[in-house]
Formats: sequence, structure tokens, C-alpha cells
Amino acid sequence: MAKLTKRSEDYSKWYNELVVKAGLAENSGVRGCMIIKPYGFSIWEKIQGELDRQFKATGHQNAYFPLFIPKSYFEREADHVAGFAKEAAVVTHYRLKTADDGKGIEVDPEAKLEEELIVRPTSETIMWNTYKNWIKSYRDLPLLINQWANVVRWEMRTRLFLRTAEFLWQEGHTAHATKEEAIKEAELILDLYKNFAHDFLALPVYTGVKSEGERFAGADETYAIEALLQDGKALQAGTSHFLGQNFAKAFDVKYLNKEGKQEYVWATSWGVTTRLIGALIIAHSDDNGLVLPPKLAPIHVVIVPIFRKQEQLDAIKEKVEPIIKGLEQKGFTVKFDDDAKQSPGWKFAEYEMKGVPVRIAIGNRDIENNTVEVVRRDTLEKKIYSQDNIVEEIEKLLSDIQQSIYDKALKFREENTHKVDTWEEFLDVINNKGGFALAHWDGTVETEKKIQEETKATIRVIPSNAPFEEGKCIYSGKDSTRRVLFAKAY
Amino acid sequence: MAKLTKRSEDYSKWYNELVVKAGLAENSGVRGCMIIKPYGFSIWEKIQGELDRQFKATGHQNAYFPLFIPKSYFEREADHVAGFAKEAAVVTHYRLKTADDGKGIEVDPEAKLEEELIVRPTSETIMWNTYKNWIKSYRDLPLLINQWANVVRWEMRTRLFLRTAEFLWQEGHTAHATKEEAIKEAELILDLYKNFAHDFLALPVYTGVKSEGERFAGADETYAIEALLQDGKALQAGTSHFLGQNFAKAFDVKYLNKEGKQEYVWATSWGVTTRLIGALIIAHSDDNGLVLPPKLAPIHVVIVPIFRKQEQLDAIKEKVEPIIKGLEQKGFTVKFDDDAKQSPGWKFAEYEMKGVPVRIAIGNRDIENNTVEVVRRDTLEKKIYSQDNIVEEIEKLLSDIQQSIYDKALKFREENTHKVDTWEEFLDVINNKGGFALAHWDGTVETEKKIQEETKATIRVIPSNAPFEEGKCIYSGKDSTRRVLFAKAY
Repeated sequence: MAKLTKRSEDYSKWYNELVVKAGLAENSGVRGCMIIKPYGFSIWEKIQGELDRQFKATGHQNAYFPLFIPKSYFEREADHVAGFAKEAAVVTHYRLKTADDGKGIEVDPEAKLEEELIVRPTSETIMWNTYKNWIKSYRDLPLLINQWANVVRWEMRTRLFLRTAEFLWQEGHTAHATKEEAIKEAELILDLYKNFAHDFLALPVYTGVKSEGERFAGADETYAIEALLQDGKALQAGTSHFLGQNFAKAFDVKYLNKEGKQEYVWATSWGVTTRLIGALIIAHSDDNGLVLPPKLAPIHVVIVPIFRKQEQLDAIKEKVEPIIKGLEQKGFTVKFDDDAKQSPGWKFAEYEMKGVPVRIAIGNRDIENNTVEVVRRDTLEKKIYSQDNIVEEIEKLLSDIQQSIYDKALKFREENTHKVDTWEEFLDVINNKGGFALAHWDGTVETEKKIQEETKATIRVIPSNAPFEEGKCIYSGKDSTRRVLFAKAY
Repeated sequence: MAKLTKRSEDYSKWYNELVVKAGLAENSGVRGCMIIKPYGFSIWEKIQGELDRQFKATGHQNAYFPLFIPKSYFEREADHVAGFAKEAAVVTHYRLKTADDGKGIEVDPEAKLEEELIVRPTSETIMWNTYKNWIKSYRDLPLLINQWANVVRWEMRTRLFLRTAEFLWQEGHTAHATKEEAIKEAELILDLYKNFAHDFLALPVYTGVKSEGERFAGADETYAIEALLQDGKALQAGTSHFLGQNFAKAFDVKYLNKEGKQEYVWATSWGVTTRLIGALIIAHSDDNGLVLPPKLAPIHVVIVPIFRKQEQLDAIKEKVEPIIKGLEQKGFTVKFDDDAKQSPGWKFAEYEMKGVPVRIAIGNRDIENNTVEVVRRDTLEKKIYSQDNIVEEIEKLLSDIQQSIYDKALKFREENTHKVDTWEEFLDVINNKGGFALAHWDGTVETEKKIQEETKATIRVIPSNAPFEEGKCIYSGKDSTRRVLFAKAY
């Protein structure tokens, strides 16, 4: 197998090659739409399974709303239409017919829709159009709905997982009786996302709110989790929006409160996407391929027998069977790869590329010595273990790998979060060092825009619980009361 | 809550009301597209969870392919394009713009796609266009892929779950080295579907192959499971297709065999949809609402306390807590409904409507007597149980309900499968009695078409392992060697 381009040579090329060679995804014949291959999809299933469990544990229910949204629905919320209805896939016809020359098919002009349908870029409008009928009184609240779905945004420049025209996601859409409750919900989900990133993706994230210029179209406040990837760029990994009463007013959703008065409902929406897989890859992987945190790895342990003759393989199998059984009983997925047509060296490279967290090799000498050779994927450290206690040792090792990957990412982030006080320092971080610049900002959209124009850096978040601190905006020199996080972003 | 229309009055109305009143689904503002509500969606999640487990246990892997398919892909398989590309949602543009009058948005004529995209009605074409790159040698076979997805077919007359423009499904698409292997796969899945229908949906199904006229567009053979619903109509509940080399030839997918020769690959595809929920409803439900087999019920047991004062409720809670715990430990979902604002009678009707298999009521007298009142939903039979052994008794009861629902459906099907030998008998079944007519047929498309024109009945399946039997076609009088199953169908 040809080696990957090194990160130090070309990050972007490294990423694209890795996604394909690890069998995660590939481009399709449809512009900007990717094919998620079985190995990549099984990572998504792990992400989905855990998040779904957590959503349900916090009282949310799944439902399914239509893929198509009538154009007029979008027109009802002014900010939303500006943000979402523009670069979208539009269905205009519902039939094709045999072409006049008898060859091929063409759109049947007779079958033009009266009103165009937009392939959902997000579902606020169709859900709130429905919530109108579901919500009558305070007893119907809160309404806590989540949907796992595909959505389409017509992106011009696409990259596998990170930015694709069609992607998979979950979108929560909740309705509440009070402003306080809705804000609490948006913050609950922000916290859930943050903990999921930490505990499963092994990815430390900064949390906070977006500046006005980066807010979701139709939101009063956008909360976000922001990760730092190995190439020094930030990546928005999830958002949770407090939508105020904007959609309730646009779709006329009122409820009868306990005092018998009609009031508009308060809303949130929140989502994470297949982009998380992109984040996972760039955050942890190396020049040999994918590095996966064990909690999201489709295969936890691969066992490679070293043998020449069938009787050697038989002897190895006998030794290995109880190890496999023991690991499976602990909930781990184990692959025993005894394919005689590939060499052990080829297999080692292959499973390194695929990011299998632990590799066990076992040969003749190991059988004599009652040992196995174990290599952990994250550090590639090799160690000889006794077979006696191997299941417990591997369990410990997997837990250690999960923690180590997180610690490494955290250390990297800490080393690449720079407190800066001058424009020169700021430029040095953004243009040379990479990572986050924690800097004073005067709070105006105007300054943020100018900084972006000059440096391509944006405010990633205004950190949660940022301490009060007097200072001067690094750009305008005006007064500031707290620092915000700038970075170049995906 | 207003009562349902009775089945004896109007089956169709009964069904539509039930779906809405049980909180399963409703129509959306988008023509033919439904909203699957949380309760309905949780039934789909149960179906999905079990099928997914079985697919994986038989070696299949999930993946995800694009929603959009370029028009030209369809043109490559002649039968397929005729069957699928016609009544489809067509994306022609990728942008909207502010309308010239400044109000609202309109399609931007500048953003016309060079080639129209079809919203997938099924994914053979895009998958086989990809398989071309995935399959090089016999070592890449078999390729066993499944996808859970939404698909769109522009149906003119739609009904919730049974026939909708957008629906959810799984679609398996497999590639094999030999014809025999592909046929074996198609039959394996047919068997899996049949057993799933029996064991989970509690629905007996006939299996067999479709006649030429009813075959999937692009298939050499279509296997199907066919259910009989309470109104005497048949419903196709799942299909598994042996596709021969049709798609391999259309997309030029060849492999290098063990002898070093290039050969075309053999294919299958198979799917079940949210239609299964419609089948479930019509097969088992009654004039009081939904009847659900316990294995697919989102809530297995509802417990309704009968109380006036808080201390009565407290006493009931104390008794009920260990029962709930015990049931949950056995994997059952229990709802304790102590909402003081609704009467017990209202709750009884509500949970009957929603098809909760077992209802437990407990009041003051029950506490004195160490009893509970139990009502099973399928028969509405009421019985007093001692609290002592209640968890085990409920477990037994749930298992009994699952079996009883199946037995009832089987008895109904046997009573409504009529062996007929004359055209008069045939007409009597199709026009008056309802159900299946097991009749001789001369094997020609022509006769099948004429029978359909005159009676609206179609051949549902040519039964698997139909015994050889000499006879005369009920329509043409020509020789026949086996009986086939006719019925009017959904």
C-alpha cells in the first residue's frame, strides 16, 4: 500500500488520502455528495448510538419530518430565508418522459410543480409549521423533538466529511413555555455536546456563544463547541441555538398559559453532523493513518497470527480463541485476521491506516513463551505481554489509549491558545503560529468584519463564563471588558 | 376522545382516523409526504433495530450513498428507467434569489443544473456506478451492503404509511461471483423477512416469486412476502430481487475470477419500508384503536393508579415501584401515569387507542387485597392478579399476547385463503368474500392482465414450493401445473 503524503508536506492532501485509504468515504459522481463507506459509516453509527441514548435520557423523542419544504415556508422568517433558502437544491418537476428523439429521458414540462420544493437545509420551518397544530396549551410543553436525517446545502467548495452538499445529522427542535426554559435547554445540549466531544471523540472543545455576525440565521443566540485541529485551524463541531420567539411568531405558534392567556412559544434548535468524523480524523491521526479513540472504533483489537504452516495457525488459533472470547465478553470488537494471502507486514500497515487501537501479534515463539506482542496505535509503542492476564491488560490499555488521545489533544490545544495583547502578536498567531488567539475585542460587528478581511480569522466563540477583564481591543484600541477566541476556521 | 369510525362502517376512514388518533403519523403541508410522530417513529425504531441486528448477523454492512442520482445513470438500464425514473422528484436548480419585486424568493434561472438530479426512488444505479470501482477480483466478493434511507416516488394517491411520496426504508444491494450465490442471497433475505414478519409483526405471510408482470423493473426474479389484512386485501410487505447481471452489464462491473478471467458480477437488491407499520396497524387493530404485538410496542405496560387523595397515590406508588423495577429489569418499558388531571376512564381509552399491550389498574381495594387489575389489549379480557408474582405473570402474559395475535392473524388468513376451480368461484372470492384465491393459471402475461382488467385482482405470488398439480386455468381453461395466489391488493 502506497504511503500517505506527510502532514508536514501537505495537510490537505494528507487528509484527503487518509479518508480514502482508511476506507471511510469517497466522492461520488454527484457534485459535492459523498459516499460514506462501511468503515466510515460504522463510526457514524457509534456516534449516533451514543448521542441518541443521551438525547432520550434527557427526555427527547425522535420523529421524522418531510425532506421537502415548500418555498413559501422559508419566506416566513426573514433572517432564516436570507441564510438558508438561497444555496439550496430546488425540486421544480415531478416527472420525466422519454425524450422526443426516443433516446433517453427528459424533464416533462407538463409536470411542473405549482410551488417549488426545497430539499431541507434544516427543518425549523416545516417543524414549526407543524408545531402550530401540536401546541395548544402549557400542558403540551415542553415539546422535545429530535430527528436523524439527511440535509442538503449547495456548497461550492466541498471536502469529504468537513463540508459536503448532502450530509447526515441530527436536528433537535424544541418548544418551551418560557424564555428561561428555552435558554436552559440550549445550554443543556451545549453541555451534552461538550461532554460527548470530551468523553467519546477524545476532543477538548471551547464553549461559548457566537458573535452577532456568526449567529445562526433566525437565532437570538448561538452556542457552539469549537475544537482545535492539528493543523492549527479551529472547527465548529456543534451548535445549539436559542431561537427566541422568532419561529413562533413566523408560524403563529401560541399556547394558553396557566392564567388562561395566549402567549408565543419559545424555541431552540441544535445539531451535530457527519462533520464530527472529519474533526475526529484531523484531531488525532498521524502520517501512518487514522488514530481512533477506542470508544468510537468499529474494531478495538486486531489479532494477527504469524505462521507459515497450517499446524502453526491451528496452534495459534487454540491459544487465541479464549482471548477473543474474553475480549468480546467485555464488549470489545475483535478481528482475527488469518488471511494467508497477505503478509503480516501488509496487515500491520493496513490496520494502522484504519486506526484499530490495539494490535496483537502472536507467533511460534510467543506460544513457546506464553506471550503476545502488543502495539498500541496512538503511540505505536510495542510491548510483550504474558498471555495469562491478557484480557484485563488489553481492557486497561484501551482505557489508557482513550485517555492518552484526549490528553495529547488537550496539551496541543493549551499550547496553541495564545493570550495576545497587541495587533502584532495577534497577526503572529493567526499568520504564523496557528491556533487560538485570546484577545480583547470592542464588541462591534464592524471591527470583527475588518479583522476577518485582513486576516481571515473570525471570532470562534465568546467563551462561556469569560472573566471580567479590562483591556483594549487589539484592532480598534477601544475599551473591552473580556477576551474572545479568534482563529482561522474550517 | 371521540370514538373511531367502526371498521364495519368504513375501513378506510377507520384506518385514517386510527393513525392520527394513536399519534402515529399525520399528513404534512407537502403533497404526499407524511410526518411520522414520535409514537409512530418509535415503532419504526424497533423494526429498524431488529432488522439491522439480523442483517449484520448475516454479514451485511451499512453504508450511505447520495440522495441525488444524475439522470443519465437511470438511462443505462432500460427496464429500470421505464419503471423508476418517470414519476420522480427532479432537482433542476441549485439556487433561489430575492424576487424582482423584492418580496419573497424565486428560482434563479442562472443556477440551472447542467444535468438534472433525481431524488432517489431506489439506489441500484448509483450503487452499481460505485461498485465498478470497488470490485476488481473474486476476493472483493461477495459485497454485502445495506442502507437505511429516505426515498421518493411521486405517487398520485397516497395514504399514511401504506403509500407515501417520501418513505423510509432499508435497501440491500449485494454483488456475487456466481448466479447460484446471488439467488441464495435473495432467498436468504426472503426467509429473513418472512421470519421477521412472523416473529415480530405477528403477521403470517405467503412467500414466493412474482409473475413477470409484477416483477421489479430490472430484476430477473422478484421474491416477495405477502400479507393478508383484515379487510381482505393483500399487501406486499417486502421484496427481494435477483437482478441477474443486468446492472453489472449496464454499469460494466466485472471481476477477475480464480481462473484469471473477467466476468460480470451477479446482483441482488431487497427492501422493506415504513409500509410495514401500515401492515401492522390494519392486520391487528380493532374499533378501539391500535393493537400492537408486544415485541414492537414502544410501551409494554401502562400502570394507572386509581386515587382521589395524595396519600392514596403515595400508598399506590409504594406498592407499584418494585413492580415497575422488576418489569424494567426484564427489558420491558413501563409507563406509570399518575396525571391527576385526567380520569382513569380517559386513560384507559387513550392507552387502548395507542395499543399498549397490558394495562394494570391499582386502587385502594387492590392494596387491601394485595391485587391488581390487568387488562390485555388484544382481547380486552380483564383479570385480577395477586401482586406477589406479578412480574413473572406479566412476562408470561406479554409472551402469550404476542402468540395470540399471530394465531388470530393466521386463523384469519387460513379462513380467507380459498382454493377455487372455476371462474365463478374466483369471482365470488374476489368480489364478495375477499382474501386470497388459490387458483390455476396458464402462466401467460396476457391472461394475468385480462383477469386484472376484469376483477382488479393480481397474482400476489407464485408460492414457494407450490406442489405440482394438474389443472385448468380458471380464466382461459388452458393447462396449468400449479396454483398461484390471486387477490386484490393495496
